[in-house]
Amino acid sequence: MSHSYRLIVSCPDRVGIVSRVSSFIAAQGGSITEASQHSDLETGRFFMRYEVRADTVGITYREFSDAFTPIAEAFDMDWAMTDSQDKPRVVILVSREDHCLTDLLHRWRNDELDCDIVGVVSNHTNMRPLAEWHGIPFHHVPVEAHHKAPAFAEVERLIDDMRADCIVLARYMQILPPELCARYAGRVINIHHSFLPSFAGAKPYHQAYERGVKLIGATCHYVTQELDAGPIIEQGVHRVSHCHTPRDLVRFGRDVEKNVLARGLRWHLEDRVIVHDNKTVVFA
Amino acid sequence: MSHSYRLIVSCPDRVGIVSRVSSFIAAQGGSITEASQHSDLETGRFFMRYEVRADTVGITYREFSDAFTPIAEAFDMDWAMTDSQDKPRVVILVSREDHCLTDLLHRWRNDELDCDIVGVVSNHTNMRPLAEWHGIPFHHVPVEAHHKAPAFAEVERLIDDMRADCIVLARYMQILPPELCARYAGRVINIHHSFLPSFAGAKPYHQAYERGVKLIGATCHYVTQELDAGPIIEQGVHRVSHCHTPRDLVRFGRDVEKNVLARGLRWHLEDRVIVHDNKTVVFA
Amino acid sequence: MSHSYRLIVSCPDRVGIVSRVSSFIAAQGGSITEASQHSDLETGRFFMRYEVRADTVGITYREFSDAFTPIAEAFDMDWAMTDSQDKPRVVILVSREDHCLTDLLHRWRNDELDCDIVGVVSNHTNMRPLAEWHGIPFHHVPVEAHHKAPAFAEVERLIDDMRADCIVLARYMQILPPELCARYAGRVINIHHSFLPSFAGAKPYHQAYERGVKLIGATCHYVTQELDAGPIIEQGVHRVSHCHTPRDLVRFGRDVEKNVLARGLRWHLEDRVIVHDNKTVVFA
Amino acid sequence: MSHSYRLIVSCPDRVGIVSRVSSFIAAQGGSITEASQHSDLETGRFFMRYEVRADTVGITYREFSDAFTPIAEAFDMDWAMTDSQDKPRVVILVSREDHCLTDLLHRWRNDELDCDIVGVVSNHTNMRPLAEWHGIPFHHVPVEAHHKAPAFAEVERLIDDMRADCIVLARYMQILPPELCARYAGRVINIHHSFLPSFAGAKPYHQAYERGVKLIGATCHYVTQELDAGPIIEQGVHRVSHCHTPRDLVRFGRDVEKNVLARGLRWHLEDRVIVHDNKTVVFA
Repeated sequence: MSHSYRLIVSCPDRVGIVSRVSSFIAAQGGSITEASQHSDLETGRFFMRYEVRADTVGITYREFSDAFTPIAEAFDMDWAMTDSQDKPRVVILVSREDHCLTDLLHRWRNDELDCDIVGVVSNHTNMRPLAEWHGIPFHHVPVEAHHKAPAFAEVERLIDDMRADCIVLARYMQILPPELCARYAGRVINIHHSFLPSFAGAKPYHQAYERGVKLIGATCHYVTQELDAGPIIEQGVHRVSHCHTPRDLVRFGRDVEKNVLARGLRWHLEDRVIVHDNKTVVFA
Repeated sequence: MSHSYRLIVSCPDRVGIVSRVSSFIAAQGGSITEASQHSDLETGRFFMRYEVRADTVGITYREFSDAFTPIAEAFDMDWAMTDSQDKPRVVILVSREDHCLTDLLHRWRNDELDCDIVGVVSNHTNMRPLAEWHGIPFHHVPVEAHHKAPAFAEVERLIDDMRADCIVLARYMQILPPELCARYAGRVINIHHSFLPSFAGAKPYHQAYERGVKLIGATCHYVTQELDAGPIIEQGVHRVSHCHTPRDLVRFGRDVEKNVLARGLRWHLEDRVIVHDNKTVVFA
Repeated sequence: MSHSYRLIVSCPDRVGIVSRVSSFIAAQGGSITEASQHSDLETGRFFMRYEVRADTVGITYREFSDAFTPIAEAFDMDWAMTDSQDKPRVVILVSREDHCLTDLLHRWRNDELDCDIVGVVSNHTNMRPLAEWHGIPFHHVPVEAHHKAPAFAEVERLIDDMRADCIVLARYMQILPPELCARYAGRVINIHHSFLPSFAGAKPYHQAYERGVKLIGATCHYVTQELDAGPIIEQGVHRVSHCHTPRDLVRFGRDVEKNVLARGLRWHLEDRVIVHDNKTVVFA
Repeated sequence: MSHSYRLIVSCPDRVGIVSRVSSFIAAQGGSITEASQHSDLETGRFFMRYEVRADTVGITYREFSDAFTPIAEAFDMDWAMTDSQDKPRVVILVSREDHCLTDLLHRWRNDELDCDIVGVVSNHTNMRPLAEWHGIPFHHVPVEAHHKAPAFAEVERLIDDMRADCIVLARYMQILPPELCARYAGRVINIHHSFLPSFAGAKPYHQAYERGVKLIGATCHYVTQELDAGPIIEQGVHRVSHCHTPRDLVRFGRDVEKNVLARGLRWHLEDRVIVHDNKTVVFA
């Protein structure tokens, strides 16, 4: 299978966008393997994602991208073009719970996640053997309860050193400082262990248990400066009953968390997620 | 099929309860067709529900019930015994949306809901033909926006006149006054059109749309004095995406609402729901 | 909201289709409100569905459709253009079970199904009051067990008289003769009460019970000459356990059936389903 | 938390069983932490599972078990008593796909599976590092396509050497010879990658793709001499559409398979599954 070029667009809706874009692609001989569009009738915004077989395009990626620029300007587009063979560089931040990390690494090894995982950072050391068994550098950055700034400075330095395109909080259990959230906006993906907006904050499974809900959930979202309030990428739920203790909820929740995070991350890595107004368009 | 006696128990957990209760039933020749128990290890509370074939019990229902009283006292039980042939009398309160009412009446006609529906009360008149087609008395009680007390007094009078055992708010869209909630505690079932505790209060689908959630839900719960905060009986969800407008959410929500309400009500009518500490044990 | 023109295309995939079609639409000023495409990489077939706001198109529907014909020919398209204000005429065939019919009529009354329901045909009479309460003509066509031909001739005559665009077997429980299946190919929608291909044929819930499955299902499909083997439009499942009797399975199944049928029919009516090679593309 | 004794019973239903059993337990001071019963009204069979806190029972496990024997005989019971601290010994058979093995080992390390995994046997070698990283002996037993008997003799010898209580076919992709199926009846658990009885046999995802189903599934079942026809413990499904290639189905299927297998195995290990008439009672 050839690699592909992905064109991601968000712009004010008007007549002729699809025509202009698809004609441009056809003029280069580009064979479209996947096309998704969405007209948001409430906001008048248009979103599209095209996947084009690279080997059918008669010019180079750079030329292709440059040639598109005037069209983008004419339609006032927020846009990106990516080449599927330029794999995003992913850093995973993790605390002591290993289910999300294990799951992501397994999927990565099985080619379900099209990226390079370039490092695992943790405030604990127990994930080191797992990361290293997968051949991934492990960085231990302890976080002191009342003096966290140095740790986050170190995390930031590591992320920069590793030239990360995407940071995954795979149950990191630490709240990133606002300036980091701002700096990496749209590139930090978190898994929250509740069905947001219910049970934001700490110990959501215990909150859910106390409230007596009949379904628990997990939410994959982009991190913003406001805690657990960023754009939601994906959610999932699991049925519970009076039989289940908080410990059972935690156990069921692990399965939901890892599946929801894996789906959300996969979509992000394949440029299937577009953020607008604190919400996401997901061309799954 | 014979009718059955149902024994519902909630009491402090200790050794010997099941033995004592089941021996009592066996001594009367009672054949147990369904037995459910739950030991809540957090609260030390024990819950049980036994269903016994009435035609295998050698004594009358009254004698059976009386004979059980000393056991109940010995174990400090909250308990009830019911006869499945004494059908609960149900009053349905409804506003202008008909999906829940249509669904409940259809299930009732198909013997899915073991009750007598003795009346439909509405602040609008458009449900009258539907109710009357099913042979159910319809009562129109308009509610004035800034002067609701007389309406609720009339609703209360109707409920009493109809000797209702159970009041179903099938999208009634009115908040019952606290004294009614208190008076009918454990007997008023509401369907809320969100996945509580998210989006309590008004226009939950629009709240959900604004937040950009990927699943919407509905919650069937007992009404208490605190709005949308009573014990949850059942919940359900439906997947949504960026494609869906608030109108779509409302449409998907109707299906979730009616299914969740129907399940919750069915369980209530079959004495499968026990409330404790603002949570429910549901022996579904 | 304006009505819309829907363009449905299935053709061999090649470079330039989207460009040609979207340029055609843009040239008429057409505003695309919904666009779906699918390139089937296994078969090399391309499918698309565009929805265009009628009030933005500068020419008449007939002119619009005529002008598209040369493009369709150039790309060897199977295609259709429809106007959303030309509502399909639907006839529902039903036997003695009323859950699907009740559900469809309720959704129709609530504007969830964009069609005219022009008649209900049944081999029994018990659905007459329900149909007539909704103002729909009811036709009783008894089917004699060993002499069915006259009944099916009468059914065919009724369908033709009513100029039905779509025939829904809403638990009709009769096998249509092959010549009718052939004549109305792609226009007859059935709900089968199992998760096909499991448990085709009679009494699927009892087959499921005997096999001890843990999920039961229902399948909405187009009727073809081979029993229960036509293109599948939609499926759904419901969890069951050892607790459940065949009667419970039938009860759960009713909910799955009606939801699955309603979704499948809605998609069909909105021209969202394209059949190819005994499979469906569903632009849901 | 104390360990517990589990009592599992299957016998003809009659009045007095629960009374007799629970009185026996109460007489020893036994505190019941979980109790499940099921009366199968079709077959007249009764099933129960009681979990009793070991530290509340005044006699030894052996005495407790011996004392129960006369009751079991009086009621013609098939029965077992187990001690939760006697962990079952599990051998996992696997081929080249690692998702089920990875998942089981991860859950086991996280105390979700209460057993000792005593060995991994494979006809390939690529799982060796994974098994050994978890400290589990790995045995490579190649299977020759047209001369399989020696391999199965070796597998049998290994199973016996390891004194396995339970054999898990975690995508083993080999059909066990009938005599092994017979010898280990009720102890071999397989995950089949389809929603049985649909798509038994080879390449189920491709069969599913060809048929155009809208949900794919997986089935965890006990292995019997008849291929893919043993008692079903658990099933799950995943939604698919025309967008998805066979490769996507395989990918989605992996998630369903591992979750369904993990649930089924967990229930088996906790003595929650009782087989009767090629069906299971699962006290989940």
